[in-house]
Amino acid sequence: MTSYNTVIEPPRLGEPYLLTPGPLTTSWAVKQAMLRDWGSWDDEFRAVTRELRTRLLAMLGDGAEEFDCVPMQGSGSFSVEAMLGSFIPRDGKALVLANGAYGLRSAETLRYLGRDFTLLDKGDYLPPRGDDVTRILADDPAITHVIAIHCETSSGILNPVEEISQATYAAGRKLLIDSMSAFGAIDLKPSEIRYEALVSSANKCIEGVPGFGFIIARKTELEAAKGNSHSLSLDVHAQWTHMNKSGQWRFTPPTHAVVAFLEALRAHQADGGVAARGARYTRNRDVMVAGMRDLGFVTLLDNRWLSPIIVTFFCPADGNFIFDRYYELMKQKGFIIYPGKLTVVDSFRVGCIGQMDETVMRQVVAAAKESLAEMGVTDAAPPDAALKERAKLAA
Amino acid sequence: MTSYNTVIEPPRLGEPYLLTPGPLTTSWAVKQAMLRDWGSWDDEFRAVTRELRTRLLAMLGDGAEEFDCVPMQGSGSFSVEAMLGSFIPRDGKALVLANGAYGLRSAETLRYLGRDFTLLDKGDYLPPRGDDVTRILADDPAITHVIAIHCETSSGILNPVEEISQATYAAGRKLLIDSMSAFGAIDLKPSEIRYEALVSSANKCIEGVPGFGFIIARKTELEAAKGNSHSLSLDVHAQWTHMNKSGQWRFTPPTHAVVAFLEALRAHQADGGVAARGARYTRNRDVMVAGMRDLGFVTLLDNRWLSPIIVTFFCPADGNFIFDRYYELMKQKGFIIYPGKLTVVDSFRVGCIGQMDETVMRQVVAAAKESLAEMGVTDAAPPDAALKERAKLAA
Repeated sequence: MTSYNTVIEPPRLGEPYLLTPGPLTTSWAVKQAMLRDWGSWDDEFRAVTRELRTRLLAMLGDGAEEFDCVPMQGSGSFSVEAMLGSFIPRDGKALVLANGAYGLRSAETLRYLGRDFTLLDKGDYLPPRGDDVTRILADDPAITHVIAIHCETSSGILNPVEEISQATYAAGRKLLIDSMSAFGAIDLKPSEIRYEALVSSANKCIEGVPGFGFIIARKTELEAAKGNSHSLSLDVHAQWTHMNKSGQWRFTPPTHAVVAFLEALRAHQADGGVAARGARYTRNRDVMVAGMRDLGFVTLLDNRWLSPIIVTFFCPADGNFIFDRYYELMKQKGFIIYPGKLTVVDSFRVGCIGQMDETVMRQVVAAAKESLAEMGVTDAAPPDAALKERAKLAA
Repeated sequence: MTSYNTVIEPPRLGEPYLLTPGPLTTSWAVKQAMLRDWGSWDDEFRAVTRELRTRLLAMLGDGAEEFDCVPMQGSGSFSVEAMLGSFIPRDGKALVLANGAYGLRSAETLRYLGRDFTLLDKGDYLPPRGDDVTRILADDPAITHVIAIHCETSSGILNPVEEISQATYAAGRKLLIDSMSAFGAIDLKPSEIRYEALVSSANKCIEGVPGFGFIIARKTELEAAKGNSHSLSLDVHAQWTHMNKSGQWRFTPPTHAVVAFLEALRAHQADGGVAARGARYTRNRDVMVAGMRDLGFVTLLDNRWLSPIIVTFFCPADGNFIFDRYYELMKQKGFIIYPGKLTVVDSFRVGCIGQMDETVMRQVVAAAKESLAEMGVTDAAPPDAALKERAKLAA
């Protein structure tokens, strides 16, 4: 196992840990970096932007020189829209691989943009597979781009982007990856998996605060993106050329969030980079899932599909279990959990990312045990319907 | 003169004052509000969003109940694009009144969106007048919306939005106002001036940090905006309905910037609201402009057109004056100024907004005097070309 050096301190102002897929719990140093005002036009801030882009690119490893990094104001979904609108030509066609809310949001974005697309909707969590991609692309030569979600946080599944990439390029098409909640903790090296562009945001595995996202794309794609965008604000090509020419963001950057992110990037490297970050989150997940299973909780997914980002648990069948009450009890104990997004059965989610380690995760499990007792829930086992649902993935 | 109660403290980390039109110098309390992480889904953060919207709406005064406030992630330009794309129907046509970069940016945005528009380009600073609007609207019945820039920070001019509004509604059209750098310091009361929507952002006269903007629009326009937007991320109607239903932002909000802005809004009210804020900035401008004129500097604009937001000065004709050197000398003394945007003659700008008062502005003038001396500039008078330029406005 890769080691990690992070010293985790509890939130200094006593706020609850955010067991959510971002915004997440950040370090005191990251937040303290926001105690200064910066002129966005000034040299010093340009240096911040430059270092930020360089550090993000370096995470790609070998082959990074063929890519460039373009930060973009707004939430992660803004960056996804920017990527889709900038890299899929107006006469292009996308295949959207969906198994949850974020896949469906990409399809909805394309609908707004008036870009042609085919949607493969696998439902709440079943993973889109390489074979699916091969079949659909063989049937539809008009498809130019495949859009994959790396970690679909609706269920917490880690999608098989390697086989999706292989199927995509075997058919001569291009891959765009929404790696929002995975980048920085799970490798996405162009030397190992081929893609044209990925997108992520500041408030995910690099543990910054929300306010902007970033697109990392092949320079050839960035060049070719000229004139594609449906939006001035979200034009990745225009942002890229302006940034390379002037060192500045085209429009006012969220200066405080940017400086906080640079602090987070430096800590990410000092901690041991992507491998160490992934190792910490994996350990968080393993400790938390084992503890929750000991309490009788059942995860939606088999271990094989569990991401180290966020885990979905079925709500207990016990009539005494009421999610809103459970949420409040957990919050009183210092932990904000996340509601579920499954359409078929009730569920909730627990995140593993942010400034937390296994010690914190043991406290999470202890708080879960106590909360169940306070509600009078003696058995955390899910209803039969949930177990039937779970069997689908194994099939 | 309206009094104001603000206690201005110098930046505690010793960073320079930002004499720029935003990002600007914020209070320590505003920045300190960012030292906590918030769950964007949690009740406490929903309460923050609710109070923020309520406080912004209250600034409209009488008639505010006919409007609603929709915060939007991204920079101010993102909010402008959101307003234009959401309120101008796809078969609508806009008249863009431009006298600087921000007017031209609105036109460029409409070009991206594929919305029909007519551009009235008055050049670097000459104000669009009510008579211009009346004439153009009479000639083109297809125009449905007029777009005006309240304070055009390219030159610092305060445009005559009252007469523009009168001309617009006399012709039965609708007005959208980009009040980015004015809202919160200059009244824009629907009881005094008619408009359908305005847009501004967190890092302007309310003195928050950058990360989001907001649209304030008539509820009738918000209702009618359904289906207009070219962009999922920038769909004001969708953001509005989601926020009213759930209390949450549709996509991850910049939580730290939002909480900082609420702190800024509370201080804005405690200081005496829009009138007091405008009075402080006006005093800043008056003290600074008087001092600079004493040094021989000449403003681009006559007093009549000077906004209390930012002021454009001509660069001195003296060959010893080099802007980059002047910028560095001013920065060494603790003040970051802003380059000019005039196309015809060299200029620079000095902002009057942010956590600064007349004491600070006297220091700015002293620093300017010292910097001129260090450069060996004995006369700050502009070249003849600048004075000719200046005469145009008087004509």
